Amino acid sequence: MKHFKACVCYDGTRYRGWQKQGNTSNTIQAKIESALTRICGEPVEVAGSGRTDAGVHAKGQVISFRTRADLQPEQLRSALREQLPQDIAVYDVALTSPRFHARLSATGKTYCYRIWNSELPCVFERNFAWQVGKPLDVDRMLSAVPFFLGTHDFAAFSTNRSKNKSSVRTVASLQIERSGQELIIHITGDGFLYNMVRIIVGTLVEIGLHEKTPEQIPEIFASGQRMNAGMTAPAQGLCLMEVFY
Amino acid sequence: MKHFKACVCYDGTRYRGWQKQGNTSNTIQAKIESALTRICGEPVEVAGSGRTDAGVHAKGQVISFRTRADLQPEQLRSALREQLPQDIAVYDVALTSPRFHARLSATGKTYCYRIWNSELPCVFERNFAWQVGKPLDVDRMLSAVPFFLGTHDFAAFSTNRSKNKSSVRTVASLQIERSGQELIIHITGDGFLYNMVRIIVGTLVEIGLHEKTPEQIPEIFASGQRMNAGMTAPAQGLCLMEVFY
Repeated sequence: MKHFKACVCYDGTRYRGWQKQGNTSNTIQAKIESALTRICGEPVEVAGSGRTDAGVHAKGQVISFRTRADLQPEQLRSALREQLPQDIAVYDVALTSPRFHARLSATGKTYCYRIWNSELPCVFERNFAWQVGKPLDVDRMLSAVPFFLGTHDFAAFSTNRSKNKSSVRTVASLQIERSGQELIIHITGDGFLYNMVRIIVGTLVEIGLHEKTPEQIPEIFASGQRMNAGMTAPAQGLCLMEVFY
Repeated sequence: MKHFKACVCYDGTRYRGWQKQGNTSNTIQAKIESALTRICGEPVEVAGSGRTDAGVHAKGQVISFRTRADLQPEQLRSALREQLPQDIAVYDVALTSPRFHARLSATGKTYCYRIWNSELPCVFERNFAWQVGKPLDVDRMLSAVPFFLGTHDFAAFSTNRSKNKSSVRTVASLQIERSGQELIIHITGDGFLYNMVRIIVGTLVEIGLHEKTPEQIPEIFASGQRMNAGMTAPAQGLCLMEVFY
């Protein structure tokens, strides 16, 4: 049995997210598993570092899988390149230890969220950024950043939360950069609850639109109530950039 | 009768180019004309500054049209925003003189051509750049630039050329910038023959791959033969940036 890990880049626009779901073959995991099953000549199950929702992208998703097929990493990489659709690319294929698991071994992740902030929507950004038409007060958004840093119970910043699991997470860094009409938010943490990045971004945008104040954030944390946080930012602005081990 | 001009931005990926063709409604001109016909309540014909091929994009295409409908530019702009698909956007709608014609009045254009130069194809660039896997010698490409500047007979750098029309054009500027794995070529001229930008780019790439020398360019010009120039670079890397009047 050989154990592999690899990185995956995908344009999530036309997929129903990462995770295999019942009969639909229109997920990224299903596309990679069916390609690997053809290449290896036996069923292959792929573990991803985490799920991404429909429309969310990745530049650095990490996967692990094992197979009895006697293939070298380079053979797998070039076979995957032939088998996968143009909007999914696998790179950095390598042998790994049987103890490595893309999800269970992960110690942190970086996501990037892109906003196109202009009265004029940009046709090229429609699948890759949240187009916010009203001007965002970036200084105000920046003043909200420190409230999110460090270890908190992020229950108010997630949806569909399992009541039995901890919702305490640590955000190691949160950066907001403006470059012309584009706003890029980078967030790194030890793990993210369901929709957590998108709700943090939605809350930051409401602060930038003067609909919320930075000082409300501690109250939102304390309430633990999803309804007190901002909206869930749309999927297409989100991209999984890197997974740490 | 009111006369209008406007700018148009489009992602050309899913269209068969700018120009209306027989029965197909899948061109950008056809989409804009049918939206304007609904909005104005009468058939509206749209002139574009020039054709773009299937898969070619625009950030600054210019159109002109006239209508008997009594509409203000701002009403037209917002009605077009509602009527047009997400990958076509009309902006800067303004009243103009009856003498203005988007094609006939144009005095120059700037195109941009994007190349993704990396062994690893980028899934996000597949519709917006030519992905060249072998390393390009940019210094060599730069040394070819002066040969294209100025006024020449570009017959060798075009296809489907009408024998009766002049193929003399003036290239006012040609810039090549590298930014990481991305190579961006900007070209400005008084007009461009069919496929001229794409054949110039294809020739530059062959020079960057050491398949042609910069010194061959004068011979190619002198021959007037399409077969002596480089390949036609693929459509998806090309974008019409600006039209001058």
